[in-house]
Amino acid sequence: MNRFTSKIIKPTRFINSFNNSSCKCQYSSSSNNSQSIYPKNKNHLKNLPLPTANSFPKNEKINDYFQFEVVHQSSKSNARVTKITTPHGIIETPNFVPVATIGSIKFVDPVTTRQQNSQLMFVNTYHMIVNADLDTIEKAGGLHNFINYQAPIITDSGGFQVFSMGHPERHNTINEQDDSVTDVNDLVVSQSIEMTKRELKGMSGKKYPGSIESITDDGVIFRSYRTSSIIELGPQSSIQYQKKLGADIIIPFDELPPYHISEEKVRESLHRTHHWEGQSLLEHLKDPRQQAMYSVIHGGVNKEMRRESLEYLTSLPFDGVAIGGSIGKDRDEMNDLLSFLMPLVPRNKPNHLLGIGDLESIIRSVPLGIDTFDSSYPTRSARHGSILLAQSNDRFLITKSEYKSQYDTPLDKSCDCPTCKNYSTAYIHHLYKSNEQIFYTLATQHNLRAMARIMENIRFKIQANEI
Amino acid sequence: MNRFTSKIIKPTRFINSFNNSSCKCQYSSSSNNSQSIYPKNKNHLKNLPLPTANSFPKNEKINDYFQFEVVHQSSKSNARVTKITTPHGIIETPNFVPVATIGSIKFVDPVTTRQQNSQLMFVNTYHMIVNADLDTIEKAGGLHNFINYQAPIITDSGGFQVFSMGHPERHNTINEQDDSVTDVNDLVVSQSIEMTKRELKGMSGKKYPGSIESITDDGVIFRSYRTSSIIELGPQSSIQYQKKLGADIIIPFDELPPYHISEEKVRESLHRTHHWEGQSLLEHLKDPRQQAMYSVIHGGVNKEMRRESLEYLTSLPFDGVAIGGSIGKDRDEMNDLLSFLMPLVPRNKPNHLLGIGDLESIIRSVPLGIDTFDSSYPTRSARHGSILLAQSNDRFLITKSEYKSQYDTPLDKSCDCPTCKNYSTAYIHHLYKSNEQIFYTLATQHNLRAMARIMENIRFKIQANEI
Repeated sequence: MNRFTSKIIKPTRFINSFNNSSCKCQYSSSSNNSQSIYPKNKNHLKNLPLPTANSFPKNEKINDYFQFEVVHQSSKSNARVTKITTPHGIIETPNFVPVATIGSIKFVDPVTTRQQNSQLMFVNTYHMIVNADLDTIEKAGGLHNFINYQAPIITDSGGFQVFSMGHPERHNTINEQDDSVTDVNDLVVSQSIEMTKRELKGMSGKKYPGSIESITDDGVIFRSYRTSSIIELGPQSSIQYQKKLGADIIIPFDELPPYHISEEKVRESLHRTHHWEGQSLLEHLKDPRQQAMYSVIHGGVNKEMRRESLEYLTSLPFDGVAIGGSIGKDRDEMNDLLSFLMPLVPRNKPNHLLGIGDLESIIRSVPLGIDTFDSSYPTRSARHGSILLAQSNDRFLITKSEYKSQYDTPLDKSCDCPTCKNYSTAYIHHLYKSNEQIFYTLATQHNLRAMARIMENIRFKIQANEI
Repeated sequence: MNRFTSKIIKPTRFINSFNNSSCKCQYSSSSNNSQSIYPKNKNHLKNLPLPTANSFPKNEKINDYFQFEVVHQSSKSNARVTKITTPHGIIETPNFVPVATIGSIKFVDPVTTRQQNSQLMFVNTYHMIVNADLDTIEKAGGLHNFINYQAPIITDSGGFQVFSMGHPERHNTINEQDDSVTDVNDLVVSQSIEMTKRELKGMSGKKYPGSIESITDDGVIFRSYRTSSIIELGPQSSIQYQKKLGADIIIPFDELPPYHISEEKVRESLHRTHHWEGQSLLEHLKDPRQQAMYSVIHGGVNKEMRRESLEYLTSLPFDGVAIGGSIGKDRDEMNDLLSFLMPLVPRNKPNHLLGIGDLESIIRSVPLGIDTFDSSYPTRSARHGSILLAQSNDRFLITKSEYKSQYDTPLDKSCDCPTCKNYSTAYIHHLYKSNEQIFYTLATQHNLRAMARIMENIRFKIQANEI
């Protein structure tokens, strides 16, 4: 007997969609079959078909619900101010996208998050599959209703997490940095997993390692870190999960290859990712549900492969372009890669830099033309006591004893967040030192508001051609 | 060399006040003295003087700032509706007093706490001494300004915590119950320490055991659980700490005797407590600062000693009466003791039941004439998933899977708290199951609002002579 078949969690339409897929792999669509539903992993990547633009339905009006407008193109750089209109509201760019891993920013509820003028919010499909009841969310009318965030939401495919968390030994680059912060300058470039492995380890809900059982050309089978049950994630199922969640912007299933692998391996991974993204887009367009889908450009730090990836994926009818995968070991390498890539990215669609959103990276990447950034940066750094200052693009550590006696000034005199309106620096310092959990809420909501103001300032400067 | 003298933390006026005290104990007032400033513990309790009413200044106008009015006396029971006017606002009674251990309700900030119509809030002097900078708080104009709680505040003396946490082996009664809750009915009578020993153990800030170094007739010397430094707490210093905090209502220093001790030991402890309370009142009245002070009636479960304690303490010019110490091993024993005691408690001043505030105890004690109750009950039970319902005086465990699919109803349809206005039962259940920290905030603010509504309902019923 196959120990998986009886316990595999699938979205309702999983089996049908698999039957309809153009995947050439051999497998059984019956969950009662005594054989594994996945073949042994074979290197037959070159046989994986890559759909072309002609494979997709032609419908000019298909995404009336998703509109993109360049408001101002800076004369000084590639920076631009744009407006993205979604069914749940407008996203002004450049903008920062906070990460609500399992349907809430850590320590801040969705309504309060919105009140800090956060616009687009990021939810991780992987963590939702493991923790939430997606059927209830669909019945509730989707994530917006379920979590009461009445503004645009983006979900990822789960690809990043399933690879980085399931096989952590495959990744030891910038994605895997330690979560501890002793100095604010330690907060370097990081891919966005709001929960680092360290946090997950300490999290009481994580009973089991979220390990991968198998990776094939059809997708990934992994074990839930909550129940140890077997879950399948692939180009069709990821999209079906994202349909249930109902975010305004969704992401095709992709592979996150390790950082230090041979060029041949990167090329294999890129081919599989392109196949998966094509399958994801086909799956999505069967039932768009007023969702937009961004492609995810891969190719690691290899510029030629990045160019190839961009050329192929922008030939397909995606609604925007996200840049994913390993983009370097530090900000300089990232900057070098983006400087090469961004002039090639089409300007008639929005773009997004996946998992990067620290202050310095934003400031360096906006002039290259990046529209949106998601990251756990302001929320995670708040939990370590790093307080952002919007006017100076600076930050300070509230943990320092010099703040103990500042009872007559808020964290930031120019800030209009509830924390700064109501409380002094000395009180926030006291709460931190006393291990009072409300500290995390007060610091996080301030940093969310600070990020929103920093992005407002950036848009203002672009419109004045100062960036 | 004395290892304590160089590190003893004292309020500014500590040494002077000690010199002025009427304590007969031998000690040196110089912190540089090479001898211990405390004598060996000797049984000379009977020599400890108990001040009489004549020992105190006569000033009829001294507490214009603290007024008490009986609004309605029920014709059905000893229950009453009263109005207590303090410098920071009005307390309607009967009322519930949430516990903001170190200057914040756990997971809810002071402004949000006030918005749930919490009136009087309880802060623990012991935890403030250990964790906060009291000089900064005094400079900020006291606790109200420092934490921005613009409503009445009560502080305790630190006596309860220093004895129960410093020498936990002395206490194994109802005060010491386990914090885990598997059924809502497990939440029985508990003395109010918002942080149980178990929570303190798990709290990252608790580096050292908060152990007692010595207990003498002058007070207690204990080690900070944060820094391991030596701190003195006694009838004068407790009041001076409470002057710096500046609460509307303060509490005299008292001893918490263990539950299972001989009658002779209880009587010794009672005498010492009476001496300490007299010293505390003398210290307070030197500089009232618009604060009111309630006595704390002791005597354990011995009715005769309770009566003696009440008679002595109500002969002194305290502004109200609190009932402290061990009041029984369960609700029946408590009810028996209160049924005896309450008819003896003067009706022209407010009274308070220290550390009791669970729903069942409140419902049983209000008809006996209790005005205010403090407890960690609604906040701690919220953290365990127990959700209060104000209209039915009931509660349910959000942890149960039956709530997973209730996406179209709030926790309580009749509730106007931010949690019920914004979120569904299914989302709150999801946050609990996902170990999202914002669950604790949302559940706690709901329970605070529910308790405020339950007390409103109780006052309404008293006015209708239904209680």
